[in-house]
Amino acid sequence: MSAAGLTPGAGELRFDHSPFMRFLGLEVIAAEKGRIELRLPFREEFVRHDGADWLHGGVVSALADIAGDYAVVTETGTGVPTIDMRVDYLRPARTGDLTAVGRTLRVGKTVSVADVEIRDSAGTLVAVGRACYASPRTPPDATRPKEETR
Amino acid sequence: MSAAGLTPGAGELRFDHSPFMRFLGLEVIAAEKGRIELRLPFREEFVRHDGADWLHGGVVSALADIAGDYAVVTETGTGVPTIDMRVDYLRPARTGDLTAVGRTLRVGKTVSVADVEIRDSAGTLVAVGRACYASPRTPPDATRPKEETR
Amino acid sequence: MSAAGLTPGAGELRFDHSPFMRFLGLEVIAAEKGRIELRLPFREEFVRHDGADWLHGGVVSALADIAGDYAVVTETGTGVPTIDMRVDYLRPARTGDLTAVGRTLRVGKTVSVADVEIRDSAGTLVAVGRACYASPRTPPDATRPKEETR
Amino acid sequence: MSAAGLTPGAGELRFDHSPFMRFLGLEVIAAEKGRIELRLPFREEFVRHDGADWLHGGVVSALADIAGDYAVVTETGTGVPTIDMRVDYLRPARTGDLTAVGRTLRVGKTVSVADVEIRDSAGTLVAVGRACYASPRTPPDATRPKEETR
Repeated sequence: MSAAGLTPGAGELRFDHSPFMRFLGLEVIAAEKGRIELRLPFREEFVRHDGADWLHGGVVSALADIAGDYAVVTETGTGVPTIDMRVDYLRPARTGDLTAVGRTLRVGKTVSVADVEIRDSAGTLVAVGRACYASPRTPPDATRPKEETR
Repeated sequence: MSAAGLTPGAGELRFDHSPFMRFLGLEVIAAEKGRIELRLPFREEFVRHDGADWLHGGVVSALADIAGDYAVVTETGTGVPTIDMRVDYLRPARTGDLTAVGRTLRVGKTVSVADVEIRDSAGTLVAVGRACYASPRTPPDATRPKEETR
Repeated sequence: MSAAGLTPGAGELRFDHSPFMRFLGLEVIAAEKGRIELRLPFREEFVRHDGADWLHGGVVSALADIAGDYAVVTETGTGVPTIDMRVDYLRPARTGDLTAVGRTLRVGKTVSVADVEIRDSAGTLVAVGRACYASPRTPPDATRPKEETR
Repeated sequence: MSAAGLTPGAGELRFDHSPFMRFLGLEVIAAEKGRIELRLPFREEFVRHDGADWLHGGVVSALADIAGDYAVVTETGTGVPTIDMRVDYLRPARTGDLTAVGRTLRVGKTVSVADVEIRDSAGTLVAVGRACYASPRTPPDATRPKEETR
């Protein structure tokens, strides 16, 4: 998958600049304007407790935060700080790779809102996230179509 | 610090059973009924991006989840799954150790609610969390004082 | 519209037992298992401030709470108390009728989770809600249509 | 109680400009920089269902939204739109007057965050709220002390 050329700041779709995201080992599966799909490959460090076959919630919430963030990046072209986030843990996340799909609900001058769905390797919806991000102070692209006032 | 003897299930206050919490390196600073204080020692893997002097939000939210969870454990004596969580990032968390204080707002038959404050090594409040946890199906201790009907 | 026969406790889909819902004037537009659609007819008391052409956020959040609640009721057949709720206000809700669609994300033994979308009379998405509800202690029972534990 | 002179925009602490707040009948009990205390006098329309002795959750969440909003107003001097809100219903709110205390956690250039505690007439904590508000585009007072960058 290539995210190149998506937006002026599409370089932001790379994760290798971040020690924490390198630890997580995140990969971009697909990206388009307003939507991103990420894969979190399984690591032993993600397990909830020894002998368990499910992942720690902290891994799931970190993935939710990042997927929502990068959904916004597909529109703004630059990284945006999280203001707040809600995560609902619907079912245990079984050991294995996780997949997250982030979608923007609103990209505004002040804040943006994104929704995230996280599935385990069996395709089961294990968590949903909803987060609010601060918009860049200076828009990277005056022509971005979803800009809204509120 | 020793949390032994706090509650019948105080063994739950240990973190060495969990691969994810071993990775985080969490330590219990203090625990009493309804309140827990944790320290998250700094690790290079927690940094937001190379050269930055602040931590990734995913580290902060994982700490919030765990601190709220263990605040409930100080009352229920056994681990409780997170139902949902909200985290508000108030200020950047500067590199260094983080401290989290979790307090129970309610410990009920069905759900418990906890608040968390997270401070950086300068003592600045960097994030607050609020989370809801499923109560154990069978109470570990019929005499626990804050049991409530709802 | 008749919701009769949907579930053993479908009588719960009526709103005329509640002074607050009578004040709101809520109407059921459609209901099926896991999904409900409500209309909130405009009232002058809902306006944000004199001369404004948008509604107060408190009206929107009350509608979100109720739509999520009744989405769960379409599956459980009995009223369920709200544990917690998040509402995101995406755009101003213009004066006029509001429409809310509630959908269950999960209906569990302990808690249920529902999503809500609220649109104004122009069809614009003005707010989204996500809420968590306590499940009935005992399975739905047609003989106790209004029983609640809270 | 007089809120006059609190801030350049202290006129905002009045509620009589809003049809919805007039319906609610809200009163300011006390206000200082970063904290507001409101009373919501009981009305029959607030009751959850006929014959019940507790209030509808929608009334509680509307009060939470407003109390957080006005906590911010004590610092910014002008009304601020809610971005998102979380409410946790800890216990049933018995019929009678409700009291809400709102406090700012952060007042920033882009967003502000406030916490709310709601008590019933017996003084029992029945709900807590946490909400995020958009800051005014043009600060009403360049000297306000809690302004922060993020």
